[in-house]
Formats: sequence, C-alpha cells, structure tokens
Amino acid sequence: MPDETDRIEQSLPGAGGTKTEMRRDPTTKEWVIIARDRAKRPHEFVQKHDRPSLPDYSPTCPFCPGNESMTPPEFLSYQDQGTGRWQVRVFANKYPALSPVGSTAHHTEDGFFWVMDGVGAHEVIVETPLHNERLARMDLRDIERVLRAYRERYNALRTVAFVRAIVIFKNHGPSAGTSLAHSHSQLIATPVIPRTMRLRHAVAAEYYDKTGRCLYPDLREHECRAGRRIILETERFVVFHPFASKRPFETWIMPKTQDASFGTVPDEDLMPLAGVLQKTLQWLDHGLNNPDYNYIVYSAPVGEEDTTYFLWHLQIIPRLSAMAGFELGSGLYINPAMPEDTAQFIRDLSEK
Amino acid sequence: MPDETDRIEQSLPGAGGTKTEMRRDPTTKEWVIIARDRAKRPHEFVQKHDRPSLPDYSPTCPFCPGNESMTPPEFLSYQDQGTGRWQVRVFANKYPALSPVGSTAHHTEDGFFWVMDGVGAHEVIVETPLHNERLARMDLRDIERVLRAYRERYNALRTVAFVRAIVIFKNHGPSAGTSLAHSHSQLIATPVIPRTMRLRHAVAAEYYDKTGRCLYPDLREHECRAGRRIILETERFVVFHPFASKRPFETWIMPKTQDASFGTVPDEDLMPLAGVLQKTLQWLDHGLNNPDYNYIVYSAPVGEEDTTYFLWHLQIIPRLSAMAGFELGSGLYINPAMPEDTAQFIRDLSEK
Repeated sequence: MPDETDRIEQSLPGAGGTKTEMRRDPTTKEWVIIARDRAKRPHEFVQKHDRPSLPDYSPTCPFCPGNESMTPPEFLSYQDQGTGRWQVRVFANKYPALSPVGSTAHHTEDGFFWVMDGVGAHEVIVETPLHNERLARMDLRDIERVLRAYRERYNALRTVAFVRAIVIFKNHGPSAGTSLAHSHSQLIATPVIPRTMRLRHAVAAEYYDKTGRCLYPDLREHECRAGRRIILETERFVVFHPFASKRPFETWIMPKTQDASFGTVPDEDLMPLAGVLQKTLQWLDHGLNNPDYNYIVYSAPVGEEDTTYFLWHLQIIPRLSAMAGFELGSGLYINPAMPEDTAQFIRDLSEK
Repeated sequence: MPDETDRIEQSLPGAGGTKTEMRRDPTTKEWVIIARDRAKRPHEFVQKHDRPSLPDYSPTCPFCPGNESMTPPEFLSYQDQGTGRWQVRVFANKYPALSPVGSTAHHTEDGFFWVMDGVGAHEVIVETPLHNERLARMDLRDIERVLRAYRERYNALRTVAFVRAIVIFKNHGPSAGTSLAHSHSQLIATPVIPRTMRLRHAVAAEYYDKTGRCLYPDLREHECRAGRRIILETERFVVFHPFASKRPFETWIMPKTQDASFGTVPDEDLMPLAGVLQKTLQWLDHGLNNPDYNYIVYSAPVGEEDTTYFLWHLQIIPRLSAMAGFELGSGLYINPAMPEDTAQFIRDLSEK
C-alpha cells in the first residue's frame, strides 16, 4: 500500500509538480492536504485481488452457530421469528481491551507517570449466523437488526457508572485490523473521553457558543447546497464524501434528526438507516471490489446525549492506502483523491 | 495484520479476560490501553517473511546513481571525499504534497468550508547511492551524513516566510507507506502547525507554566530513574520504549542537550546520534527480522526554536499491527505489549 508521500516513484523527466490544496475539517479544525487536478483517478483505487471464498460454516469459528460455547455468555441475541435461530449475538470480547473490573482512580508511582486500571467494556456483535456473509450483501431486515443491537447495547452501557464514552465500530478485512472473517462489529465503552471525541465535542461546543446553532446540521446543509460531494439523500439521511476527507472514499452518513448519540435514534429511523448503510456499502463493494474498511459510529460523550450541539453520525473509512510517517507524526493527512471525484464515481455507479 | 480488538479469535472455552491498564502519555495527555500480564510476548512480533533481495543498482530507480535526471534538480548533495561520488542527495519530491507556490491566505466560498493553497515544501533525502542498502546496516559516517543533510535542509527551510513547521520522517517498507525500496527519508514543511505538533507544544507550554521546567528532560529523567524501559544511555542520548507506548517496540531517542529543534543540534552531537540511531535500528532489524517502520523527528514549531520548554526527539514506530476502527475513531490506542517487556527483549539482544 504505497503512501502518497512516495509518489515520486512514478516520476517522469520534465513532469511538473502536482497541485494540492489544504482544506479544514469543520468538525475538528484539522487541515487536510488534498490533491487537485485529479492526481489519482477514482478507478485507480479498485482492489485488484479477490478475497478467498469461504464456506458458510466453519467448525473452528467461535462466531458460527453451534460454537456458542467458544464465546463468553451472551448479553443479547435476536432470533429469527420463523426459525427461532439467532441472527445477531452480542457477548464480551474474550480478550477485552477494557473490562468492567478495577478502579477508575488515577494514580502515579513517582508523581509523573499516570496510570489507571483498564476499566470499561469491550463487546462483540456478530452480525449474521453465516460465516461467509457480509453487511454489503445482507437483507435490509438483517442490517436493521444489527443497528438495533448497537442501540440496545449502547443504552445498556450508558447507565454504567464508569462509562464516559461509547464507540461502536467495525473492522472489515485484514488491513482494517481484523483477522476474523465472520462478519462482526464491536463496541468499546471507555472510562475517559478519548482524544478525538473530546476534540469534536469541543469544536462543536465552540461553534454553538459563537452561533447558537449545532455545527453538524449546518455542515450537512452546506454539503447539500454544494451538492457535488453528496452520494445519497433520503427523507431522513444524507450520505456524502466530506469536503475535508482525510482519505479516498471516506463516507459520512448523517441523520436529519437532532440526536446527539446513537442511543436515542428513534425506532422509525432504524430501517431507513439500514437502507442507506446497505446502499453505501454495496456501492463501495461493487465499485472498489470489496475493499477493506472501518466504520465508526460517533456519539456525544455519555451524560451529554441531551446536548443540542452534537449529532451522531457514522463514518466509513475504506483502507486503500497506508498511513505513513508524516501522517503518524503530524496528524496532517494527505488525501490523493478529491472527494468531488470519488462522489461522482459512486453516483455513476448508483445510476447504473 | 490482526488488530488487538480482534483477539477473541484465540479464545478458549473458560479463559478469563486479559487484564489491561491505561497509561497517560505525559507529552500529549492521551491515554493508551496497554495489555498487562504479558498478553503478547515480544518474540511474537518477529516478522515471519524475509524481504526479496535486491540488486545494488536498478536502471529504473530514480534514486540510483546515473539516473539523476529522473529527479528534480538537487538542493544538496554530499560527496565522498575519496571517490567524488555523491553519498546523500536531496531534491524536491516530483509529486509533492506541498510546494512553494500559491498563497497562504485562507478563504471560503460559502462562509463555511475553509481552504488554502497547498503551500510548503516536500523534499526527498536519498540516504545512500546503493539501491539495496538500508540505514540499519550503514556505516556510522554514512548515517551521520544523512543527519547532517536533515539539519542543513531544516535550516534552509526554516527561514522561508510561509513555513510554520518542519517534519522530517522516514517510511521503511510497504506497510510503513513506501513503495520505493531505495533507502530515503523525506521532509515536509507546512504553512500551518499540524495538530499533533500543536498538541505537544501546548502540553509542554502548560507544564512549563506550572513547574518552570521543560517537560522533556523531566520525562527523560523519570524514564532513567525507572530504568526498566531504557534500552541505551550514552553521554549525550537516552533511548527508551516510553511509559505510554502506543505501539509495540515504539522507541524514542532523546538528547541530553536542550535544543528545541533539529536545526540547532550541535556538530558534536551528530556522530553520537548516528551511533545511537545505528544501534537502535540494528537491534530492531536483528530482533524483529527487518520490520517495516516509520520514524519522525519532532521539533518545535518554526520561530519557536529558542523556546526552553520543548526538546527535539526522534520517534521510531515499527509497523507491527494494523490501526483498526477503534483507534481511527477514538484516537485511543491499544498496545498489546508492555514497553517494559519489549525493552527487556531489546536489552537481551544488545548484550549478545
């Protein structure tokens, strides 16, 4: 996965420098470097290798039906009304990053280095009983069940005393950080507010103080007015490649309601959300040949879900290029593709 | 590259949860989740595959001697006194992320989305004329030349009007973001202060205001006093796996002087720095079988190099695991290895 800092490889004698521009993400005030003049065309990101095909059941997979004893006890499962078999299962990660034991007190041995127990929760949401299924190909009804499980676990955990933030996320494919083929999401509840959530929250609060309005609906409206980065708009949701996309094909799904956290998504929004998520993942799947991706559901910090200055949303990050030293070191991203171009590429697909 | 959020794969019926702790990085105040109880032993990070071997010259490589016309004109080259041939060459990246044209004025089309030209500089530092050489195997004298080139280009760029920050970095291997085998570093000069530099700077300034001391020498002293994470201490440098390492084998090289930027590293420190960098890279190379890595040289923002509250340092980040959705979304890292254990692993190597 070459990084854009290394494009000199493709140099030709006499070629001029690529023009770039810097765009500021309104939600974090971070600048992003974006290649202009179509430095890299959207079709160049199509994945060249197909994934190995899988059976619909694996005897060694802890997420397959019949192997439930290989996982910790389940917190939740949703059955199919007809067959009585589970369709979605949620349980603790056997090797959790955080677990609900210990103390949230910070302490230091030498007055300098601060440490606390890894208190929190880390859960796995198995999205389907089928070993070889994936979200992009699942039925609306099945995707809706997964989203409902997110909401139920969010609301179960938000009342736990030590929980300050809840991050719901998905790793699809090896370069997105998963080694498990069986389709699943995860949820981590943290005892501190993680850095990027704190930053987003602070920027939104500042915007509210200055304007009396919520930043996110304003952003959504400005994206809709510009239009060129929108890939889908429905009665309840807008899907777009944001103005200051950090990476090619970065995609945000934003509701038209005013819910600060995923815990308060109304019932009547779950099926429409399943619809836009399904379409968005299908387009990525078809357009880029099933790329690795992550998605993250952003909510306000726990206890601030009533705030009027945040809006939950879902970000999809296809993993099409490596993060290199400059980005690791500076936090300043280089995006080799214009979101206007990648959005057009997706719109062209969606019209076929 | 499995991510630690997915360790459930290795679950066994009846196994208990892995204990973790959270540690706070004193330089950013970010928390990191670190596996306790030796969840993953250092030797598990040894790379299983050898790299393909390369010739010492490639006719299509723009970095090889004889192919100089394939690159933009050079800013700098250092010759070997004996042969008169270049040993280090610096020139503009042919496809620069930023280039010294345009305006630093911010503007907005619609009063909401801010944009500016991609003004700055992006240079390539070719470290050796040999196509198949790498830093970890180079002579002290050759490494010192590379460091001298860093300093010379840093000082040339710091006087340019639009430059606010200078990041020197290296991408080694595909998962570190390079597609070019020929050993090289890069330098990017930015017209804004990138987020992570701004954060580091703010935390250091706050520490100075509170204590009257520079954070970094205090950190270095506390690391030396703890001792367990130190892998090398010389008269002029300390090398350690920091208390709140974000990733396995993350390694910091910190000087004992008080220079805020790489531009003011004194002559007499260059050869000793070459020595500790060589040793550190050799241990990683031998111990982990030539892993992909990035390194980044952190300096104070341009114009603040006289500050007494920052200290330049070099961070090496081996790329041993993928960054997954949780880390992308939250900025909260999960480190599957204790820095005390990885430092011990390196010390054991160094004593052989």
